Amino acid sequence: MPVNEKIFIGLLGYGTVGSNVYQLLQDQAGEIEKATGAVISVKRVLVKDVAIPRTGAPADLFTEDFEEILNDPEISIVAELIGGTEPAFDYVTAALTSGKAVVTANKQLLSQQGFYLFRLAEEKKTQIRFEASVAGAIPVIKVLRESMVAADLKSIYGIVNGTTNFILTEMSRTGAKFKDALARAQEWGYAEADPTSDISGKDAAAKMAILASIAFHTRVELEDVACAGIEHVSSLDLAYARELGLTAKLLGVAKLYKNKINVRVYPALLKQDHPLASVNGAYNAVFLEGTTIDEIMLSGPGAGGMETASAVMSDIISVVARRAAPGFLEYPAAYRELEFFPDDEVVSTFYLRLEVEDEPGVLAAIASTFGEHRVSIQSVLQKGRGAHAELVMVFHPVNEASFNASIEKVGKLDVVKSAPRPIRVEGNEE
Amino acid sequence: MPVNEKIFIGLLGYGTVGSNVYQLLQDQAGEIEKATGAVISVKRVLVKDVAIPRTGAPADLFTEDFEEILNDPEISIVAELIGGTEPAFDYVTAALTSGKAVVTANKQLLSQQGFYLFRLAEEKKTQIRFEASVAGAIPVIKVLRESMVAADLKSIYGIVNGTTNFILTEMSRTGAKFKDALARAQEWGYAEADPTSDISGKDAAAKMAILASIAFHTRVELEDVACAGIEHVSSLDLAYARELGLTAKLLGVAKLYKNKINVRVYPALLKQDHPLASVNGAYNAVFLEGTTIDEIMLSGPGAGGMETASAVMSDIISVVARRAAPGFLEYPAAYRELEFFPDDEVVSTFYLRLEVEDEPGVLAAIASTFGEHRVSIQSVLQKGRGAHAELVMVFHPVNEASFNASIEKVGKLDVVKSAPRPIRVEGNEE
Repeated sequence: MPVNEKIFIGLLGYGTVGSNVYQLLQDQAGEIEKATGAVISVKRVLVKDVAIPRTGAPADLFTEDFEEILNDPEISIVAELIGGTEPAFDYVTAALTSGKAVVTANKQLLSQQGFYLFRLAEEKKTQIRFEASVAGAIPVIKVLRESMVAADLKSIYGIVNGTTNFILTEMSRTGAKFKDALARAQEWGYAEADPTSDISGKDAAAKMAILASIAFHTRVELEDVACAGIEHVSSLDLAYARELGLTAKLLGVAKLYKNKINVRVYPALLKQDHPLASVNGAYNAVFLEGTTIDEIMLSGPGAGGMETASAVMSDIISVVARRAAPGFLEYPAAYRELEFFPDDEVVSTFYLRLEVEDEPGVLAAIASTFGEHRVSIQSVLQKGRGAHAELVMVFHPVNEASFNASIEKVGKLDVVKSAPRPIRVEGNEE
Repeated sequence: MPVNEKIFIGLLGYGTVGSNVYQLLQDQAGEIEKATGAVISVKRVLVKDVAIPRTGAPADLFTEDFEEILNDPEISIVAELIGGTEPAFDYVTAALTSGKAVVTANKQLLSQQGFYLFRLAEEKKTQIRFEASVAGAIPVIKVLRESMVAADLKSIYGIVNGTTNFILTEMSRTGAKFKDALARAQEWGYAEADPTSDISGKDAAAKMAILASIAFHTRVELEDVACAGIEHVSSLDLAYARELGLTAKLLGVAKLYKNKINVRVYPALLKQDHPLASVNGAYNAVFLEGTTIDEIMLSGPGAGGMETASAVMSDIISVVARRAAPGFLEYPAAYRELEFFPDDEVVSTFYLRLEVEDEPGVLAAIASTFGEHRVSIQSVLQKGRGAHAELVMVFHPVNEASFNASIEKVGKLDVVKSAPRPIRVEGNEE
């Protein structure tokens, strides 16, 4: 390799991540040169308004014109850090089409247009890398793409949204209600003013679509991932769960059954000795199970400006390191179009809290309704008395369609006073 | 890339790992071909005695003659799975010298000859990969080599020996004595008949030498890593530690201070909410801290036959994927010869249990001895009475030389009845 080869980057965006990437490239230049044999520098930075004064980089680096980056033959890597689908999609498409490598942190883009972009990169014999799109600086994309090719992965469990994990941890720790824990998360900067996309599970769903695509070498997009959020998780459920030795997490779950996949996001209860159960606060983690590997977990802080910038840097270095051989493992080349496994056919374990009338025969009525649907109860706790009587139940593994049918019937019983909201229990299938 | 390119492997050794690798290459052939564009197969297997009947592979694959592998120009990858330093060193050296890539699971070899072998691979423009040498199927080597180049790592904490972690977990969980927990580990197959290299910390030291070399891009060999084992950790210490909110682990600790490194293995106490504290049983984990990344943890089962084979497979696939560009990041090319930071100058926090006379003035005598050495006590618990009186102390961070000097003096006090055995407390430097 020619030592001191020069590699030029076009940066799209100069917010927290963009400016951190710029700074890291300066600070780590020596290390990077030693490791890759290349001097990597930013040649152009795309911003909306060059007139706004910016620190860190010389003013003449900034441009408002993407074409200046696209048409500069010296720029071989475009780092897309503007987020959202438009104009990011157009920029990334144009960059790949012209043969430039792309590094992006954009989960929206990848979870909606990933399939197209991966194919395009493959066709143009260039690279697209996106470590920063999932789980901050935790190198889960690289590990899935490059270390797990022969692992025959069967399931991925992800805690991939720091906001919801912070809220659930806070609720468990202090007994706070959802609303109050959310307010605290906002106050401390762990939740945005509009937290909808985090709370609803949609942010996690985008990340799970990306992880499932890579892990199972197939096409999974945001719209393929059903999601339920944490807004209905009550502090009472968390307290009862703890009595049962369980901890609540918003989990992304991607599974491969008989060559069909199922990818969903929902609040779930985990045994307290499950490795994911001790991932607390704004942390992220991904837990992998396969035929030849099992229970591998990667964890760390969720995405902050520096974590994301660090992941972008890793990708830039990987692009440079692999520039002489851009093929192989750089994209999920071995795509197969797997079918989806219907939610209804998934077998799950459920926890259920029911507000009931405090009178004789209630448990018998409920138990017989479940029995009619062949739904088998593993344990029941009777909680409270009088107006606050409750049953806390855990079920044996059951087909979800049967369970949902039974729940609908149970919810209509006179002795049941509020809509049943079951929570899945994960991690103890065996 | 030419599709269906054929890649041939020479396997050295056909024990549990070797035969699993052979089997995985068969089972995963389709996936591997799709991902790499290559058909990978084993052409020769070196064994000591070809007359011994073996299952899984055809008899004519086996040979007793390494030269048959070395001189076969079709064989481009040698997978060394025989272990130990001789003849493994000669085989690996010969293979690299002839330009073949090497994949090895051999921690002894790498922790003693790694520097020489990395240089040789670099010089011959070929690859040496060794994911399986540390932490089973957890892809820590790949992550350190390829994802952490710009992370500016400052410290690595590793639970890298499953046997000792199993024993300490068992002692904590049941209150068992070391001897009994070891017996249980042997009975259940988590400890060998001769457990010396695990118990003494030497196995962990070899792995930490490898991790520190890669993480800090320098030369760290087994003999550079001081180690203390778990044989003197008492169940009483574990019980007191728990009262203090601490959990015991055999930790490998590699730190970079002001461009000097310090790598050691010792039993340590961790706060129960530290991510490493919940790594239990025969599990392994590596915890990374740096300037741009922080608290990234990778964890999973320690090395079993299948985990090791899976890591070897990942390496083979990485070699094949990178065959067109063997340079860059494939070895710690950016070696620098860092000095070692003397143990005596490290600042640590200690826990100490002292068996003492149960009489007035004992604490004063001990406290004043520590005071003379400017060693500052953070907390003291008085435990037991009469013949079983004990003091359980935790200290403020202190220079190790000062602490050791104070301990020597304290040990000589008449009121102190047994040799003081301090245990470091890690993970709360701030």
